[in-house]
Order: sequence, then C-alpha cells, then structure tokens
Amino acid sequence: MQATLIKDLFASLHEGTLAEGDIKVEGWVKTNRDSGKIGFLSLNDGTSFLNLQAVYGGDNPLYEEMKKARTGAAVSLTGKLVVTPNAPQPFELKVTGFELIGDVADDYPLQKKRHSFEFLREIAHLRPRTNTFNALYRVRSVLAYAIHSFFFERGFVYVHTPEITTNDAEGAGQSFEVVTRSKNPYTDFYGVPASLTVSGQLHVEPFALAYRNVYTFGPTFRAERSNTPRHASEFWMIEPEMAFCDLSGDMAIIEALVKHCIAYVEEHCPDEMDFFDKFVAKGLKEKLHKVLHSEFKVMTYSEAIVILEKAVKEGRHFDYSKIEWGMDLQSEHERYLTEVVVGGPVFLIDYPKEIKAFYMKENPDGKTVAACDLLVPEEGEIVGGSQREDIYEVLKAKMEKAGNIEGLSWYLDLRRYGGCPHSGFGLGFDRFLSYITGVGNIRDTEPYPRNYGNLKY
Amino acid sequence: MQATLIKDLFASLHEGTLAEGDIKVEGWVKTNRDSGKIGFLSLNDGTSFLNLQAVYGGDNPLYEEMKKARTGAAVSLTGKLVVTPNAPQPFELKVTGFELIGDVADDYPLQKKRHSFEFLREIAHLRPRTNTFNALYRVRSVLAYAIHSFFFERGFVYVHTPEITTNDAEGAGQSFEVVTRSKNPYTDFYGVPASLTVSGQLHVEPFALAYRNVYTFGPTFRAERSNTPRHASEFWMIEPEMAFCDLSGDMAIIEALVKHCIAYVEEHCPDEMDFFDKFVAKGLKEKLHKVLHSEFKVMTYSEAIVILEKAVKEGRHFDYSKIEWGMDLQSEHERYLTEVVVGGPVFLIDYPKEIKAFYMKENPDGKTVAACDLLVPEEGEIVGGSQREDIYEVLKAKMEKAGNIEGLSWYLDLRRYGGCPHSGFGLGFDRFLSYITGVGNIRDTEPYPRNYGNLKY
Repeated sequence: MQATLIKDLFASLHEGTLAEGDIKVEGWVKTNRDSGKIGFLSLNDGTSFLNLQAVYGGDNPLYEEMKKARTGAAVSLTGKLVVTPNAPQPFELKVTGFELIGDVADDYPLQKKRHSFEFLREIAHLRPRTNTFNALYRVRSVLAYAIHSFFFERGFVYVHTPEITTNDAEGAGQSFEVVTRSKNPYTDFYGVPASLTVSGQLHVEPFALAYRNVYTFGPTFRAERSNTPRHASEFWMIEPEMAFCDLSGDMAIIEALVKHCIAYVEEHCPDEMDFFDKFVAKGLKEKLHKVLHSEFKVMTYSEAIVILEKAVKEGRHFDYSKIEWGMDLQSEHERYLTEVVVGGPVFLIDYPKEIKAFYMKENPDGKTVAACDLLVPEEGEIVGGSQREDIYEVLKAKMEKAGNIEGLSWYLDLRRYGGCPHSGFGLGFDRFLSYITGVGNIRDTEPYPRNYGNLKY
Repeated sequence: MQATLIKDLFASLHEGTLAEGDIKVEGWVKTNRDSGKIGFLSLNDGTSFLNLQAVYGGDNPLYEEMKKARTGAAVSLTGKLVVTPNAPQPFELKVTGFELIGDVADDYPLQKKRHSFEFLREIAHLRPRTNTFNALYRVRSVLAYAIHSFFFERGFVYVHTPEITTNDAEGAGQSFEVVTRSKNPYTDFYGVPASLTVSGQLHVEPFALAYRNVYTFGPTFRAERSNTPRHASEFWMIEPEMAFCDLSGDMAIIEALVKHCIAYVEEHCPDEMDFFDKFVAKGLKEKLHKVLHSEFKVMTYSEAIVILEKAVKEGRHFDYSKIEWGMDLQSEHERYLTEVVVGGPVFLIDYPKEIKAFYMKENPDGKTVAACDLLVPEEGEIVGGSQREDIYEVLKAKMEKAGNIEGLSWYLDLRRYGGCPHSGFGLGFDRFLSYITGVGNIRDTEPYPRNYGNLKY
C-alpha cells in the first residue's frame, strides 16, 4: 500500500474532500503515551508541520510493542482514518498495523523537554526535527521559492554568478582565498589568486545589459571576524539588476518583492507562522501584515539628518548622538526613523557619496548618490540598492580613486558599449528570513551556519 | 511613456490580443541598414529572443541621426506599432521618435560577423548579447526554475547545504581549501581546516529524515586538473533525498524530473530551442522529444556486462575492449547500451560495490549496491543515484574501511536515531543544460566558467 502523506490529509480537510478509510502512513514518533487500555501516538511524517494522532486500543495484538515506540523512532502505521468533529484534532488514525522501521538509541538528544537554541546549534543534523527548526527551514524553502517565482513571473533571467572570483570586491581582509594543497597554493590551480565572492552584483550587471531584467541568488562570503547574531561568514544573497531603470523603478521592485514574499509565506506556511507568532516572536504576524498593507515612504538622507538632529535637541537618547551630515547612520537611528518618525517601511535615499560604493550614480548635486536603503520597523535596514553610474568618465575617475580599476576593465566596458541607466539592489536572504520568522540569530536561520571560529559539519 | 516590452508584444500576438497603436520601446540595436529613403532597425530589448523590426522613413527629421545608430547601441524608440500580415515579421514599429541612450565605442567586439565560441569565452561579459549565448542563458534560467517548480509542487523542502565544509568528501586533492591571508591561513579563521564542498548529499540527508522529501541546488567545486569540455571546477548540482524511498522510488523521481524539465523548456523557450535545433545541434528537438515520450528502461550492471562481452565477441569495436565484471564502464560502453541496445534512456542498476561510494545500500547478494545511473542517447550518464545504507553496523564498517568515520559521526547518527530506507541522486546542472541545448562545452553553459588554469572575472 502506498503511504499517504500527512500534508495531503490536511489539504483534503481544507478542501472538504477528506475521506474516511484505510490508509498507511510513515513517519517519526513525536510523542507516545498509553493508559494501559488505550494509546495515543502523535506522528510527524515531515510533509506537514502538523502531526497525525494515531489511536491504538488494548485489544490490538501489537499494543505492547507499539506502546514502547519512542520519540524519534521511524514507524509505519496502517489503520482507518476517521474524522473526529468533537475532538481537538480534526481526524485520527485508528491503528490496526504497526511496524518499527528504525529505533532510536538511548542517547537520542531530542527528548520531549525543551532545548535552548545554543544547544540545538551543536546538533545541526538533528535540530530540523524540532518544532521551531522544522517550521524555520520549511519557511526558508518557501521563501526561496517565493523569490524565484516573483522574478520568473516578471520575466527576469536568473544568472548563476560565480563563487570563485578574481575580484576581491570589498578590499583586503574581507575575502576568503581559495587555494589547493600544492607547492604554490595560491596560484597552482588557476594561475592567479582566487577569492570567494562577496557579491554577485558586478558579475550580474553585464547580463542586465543583455536581458534587461536579471537577478542572481546564491551564496556569498565574508571573512569578517565578528561574532554577532547578524553576522555569518557564508550567506545567500539576492541581487537583481534592471536596465532602463532608475532609482524610483528600483524602489518599486523592492517594495513589490518584499510584499510578494510576505504574502507568499502567509499563504503557504500558515501553521508555521502561527507557531512563530505564538512561541518565538509575539506580534510577528501583525508586524508583517502591517508592512504588507503599508505604502513604503521615501525620505532623503538629508531630511533624515535634520530629523535626527531635532530629535537629539528635544532629548531623544541615542548611544551615538553626534548627528552630522556625512555620517553613517547607526541601527538605532534607522530604527528611530522607521519606527517612530514614519511608523512603517521607509526608503532612505540620496546618501553622501563618500559613505557609499564606487559604482553608485552620482546625483546632479555632486554630493550625493542615487542609493536607497529600505528600513523596516523592528529590524532597520533589510535592502540596499542604487542606480549605477552609467557615465564612463565619472565611473572611471571613481575607480581610479578607489584603486580597483585593474581587473575590472570589463566592468567599465559596460559604459562604453550600449550603456543605459540601470539599477539594482541586494537582499540578504538569511537576514530576511530572520525578519520574517522572528528567529533573531542568523546562525539559526541557516541549516549549517558558518561564522568566525565556528565550522562544524 | 512606460516602455513596452518586446516579449509582451509577442505574447499578445500569440493570444490574439495584439493592438496597433503608439508605443515606446527601449533596447539595443541588433542591425541597422538604410537605403537612403527608408531604414530598418532591428531592436532587441533583452526580454525576448525575438527582435522588433523598426522602420523609419526618409521624411523623418531624425533619419540622418538614426541611420548612424550602430550595432550594440542602446536606444529608445517611439512610434506606431502596426501588424504586417504580408511581411516575414508579424508586426513592425513605424518610428516617429528616436533617442540614442548609449553609443558603442569603435572597438566593440560584437560586430555582425560570426565569432567562435573560443573567442566569445574571452569576453564573457559581452557574449550574452549574441544569439547563441542569449538563448543559452535564458534556457539556463528557465531550466533552473523548472527544477525548483518540480520540487515545490511536490512538497519538497529546498535546503541550502553549506559551501564551506570540514568534510573533504572525495578525498585529498579533489577539494579546494578555504583560507584567510593571515599567520596561519588554514586555521586562523575557523580554527579548523575548511574546504569547498564537492557535494551537498551528506549534508542534505539529515533533512530528509525530518521532512521526508528534500533537495539541495547550489554550487559545488572540484579541484580536478583536467581540461575537458565536460569538466569545470565550479558547477551547480541538484541533489534530492527522499525518506521511506527505495531505489525504484528513486528512479521514478529521476524519470519524472527529467521529463518535467524537457517539457518545461519546450513550453517556455520555443524560440530558443528552434534556434539551437537549427544552428547548434541539428535534431536536438527530436532527440529530446523522444526522451520525453519514452519509458525509461532498467538494466542491471551484470546484464550490461554480458551484453558488452557479447558485442565485443561479435566484432563491436570499443577503445576499451577488456570487458569484465567489476570494471568501471566507459562512456563508449554507456552510449552503446543506451543508443544501440536500448535505443532510449536506460537506468543501469546494481553496480559492484567496490566501484561505488561508501554510503550506497548493499544488496542481499553481498556484491552489489542499490545504485542507478541514468544513461541517455548522445550523452551517456546524466544522473547518478542510490539507495543509502541504512543499517548502522554495515555503514560503520564501510566508513572505517574508507577511513572517513572521523568527522562524520553525525552522518552515522542518522542510522541510530529513527533511520529508515532513503534514496537520492545527483544531477549536474551544467551538464544537463549542455544536454538540453546541444551546446557541448560546459565552459559555454556557465556564465563565468572556472576550470583548471582559467579564472577570469
């Protein structure tokens, strides 16, 4: 008999097509208790966040065997599915057949009691079996698909930009080097030094000038020696790039993408989101729902500075209180702007050129660039974007100043061969997942986190 | 005026809703020729493989300026879209307005003449603008989405397995090492030596034991010093893993996936596939169509050996003609089996355990393992899969023999904590794209190829 998937039972229930009758299910024991006369086994088969309750009676010849099935054991059950309109669960399985497929050793670390996230981080190969992490990595998967579907439906071309590059984009110390165990480890394989990518943006831009709308979505790396809940040395990034698109077009895509993702997760992971809302981050669903139904505002960096200066004068406390034009905003400033001043998502635009990257388009004022950071309540910045400098001479001068023109002549070429206004942005996938689930530490949002001093598996 | 996308014009045409009227388009000049009295500019905007023909008359005040627009230039055109039922192209744009957005320098390498693939490999930032590579990377994008949609629709959870690992899975020399520029480059950052992953399989298996059906799809790396059209040092792999699934279940998923992908590309990239069929690999569409409508056969390795022995006796020439049980099959043998013997796709199963990986499930005969390789005509092997060894003692003994038990105790754990029969496979994405498009060199299928001695960009 083909096994029935628990997700299909719940789907049928919602569609009103659930049929009673004989089925087989396979999965893992979540809990199992018996009174001597009747037993209740809660089964999770991995296809749904929800469990199937299985009931077995004392008259069952397998009763003694079945009551010994322990949390975590893989089992196969056959029996009759019956609807139970008066019980807490909508249906249950009246067990007739039982098979223990894989037992659990006595030292199984996931017993019924609660475990700390720190403890679970040490057993990354088992934590997807717990409620929190099971919900988390399913949302991660659905969120990834939400992103692909958003771009696919809009005709964007997905480009696999390279992981190994010659281009140490952010300067010395931030990149990992790729070597082989040989006489000249740095050059024996490729002939030139190789780094792990810190961003696919420069590599994806040429594709925007061929396909108009493109994106990359893949792993990126930073060898940052910081150990905060927001830093990982390996993480996934989404980096779209649109030709014939200025900063306002860029912001329109960012807003549409963020809303699409929230709506998609709401629709496809209702049980998981209920769980997070209840047990991980109270108020999460309301927070996201607000973002989904708000109009994203726009504020210039210069306006923000005036507002922050005024706030300090009126007694608002910031740890970093020396507000002046040209400064990098701190997280506390960003959160004040989005939470207190705007009360919703806001794009901060037109940053001083000195604090932004060389490839950003210089505004006519000569002082700022057409950059945008999206700030959201309870988090701060989640997206950074910009229009790109498309004037050859301006870009060349900036690259000469930044000292990165060597090895990037191909990037300059794009401004000599049919260039046009284009824009793009970067969305850190793991942080975005953290924002959407309320699971605050990036090390938990990643199946096997890597960060300074920590490499397991 | 908002720009109209050329893909939308062709979509409307197919739906029978194309309306004549004033539009604006933006894109790049493919060709531009004029007779002195009338000019024809072929425009590609990147959203479609197909071009829009724009016509401009001698009476147009912009005539002199427009006729100078060169191949590769970015332009904006306004005018009236008219249907042309009697012309080769279904519609054209009668130009009223023209703007040169980005000119091309004189040294633009993509003039009208044909270029070799070798030459184009040197200008990876420009080749997506050529017909072949434009078609290729759009199919690459659609194929990636076909894979995600296949698994998403079936409830599989997408897992981002790590790129940086402690696990040099295939043994010394095949892995790249990840280091930082510091005193002790190999250990200063993580405290332990770090490699780039050669496969996500071991890391994804724990998730199958939590979600039942999972897959990983991401970059993998091999530091192989071989420079063949089939080898790249960085490539994308799809590695699904299914719990409660034996080898026959595994093969059913492989067959469904391969067919889904072919059908998806046929449906979403008809113009690109026509182009490949005509200019790159004649007979391509028929080859794929046959696979789509064939039933995949199954043959044991032992049967294959008997067939190959018989073929050699009957005079069939193989470069490697010493056929004996226990040998690794060469590509020529695989192609003979799929092309001559079966005349279609065939799974070869039950390989000698000595030539297969340690994690494959030992068959009751004690000599073979429950592995399958999918062979297809004109290519040979495209997928390798297996049921996994789920008996703790058997796996432990094999790992001790292979000498890789240290650092992989977590992998063994899966056989102690609710283990069950599970299976999976690996599909090399770049090779699969090569098979589907007929573009034979893996270095062309990748946006920025990396291989021994070659690292640009």
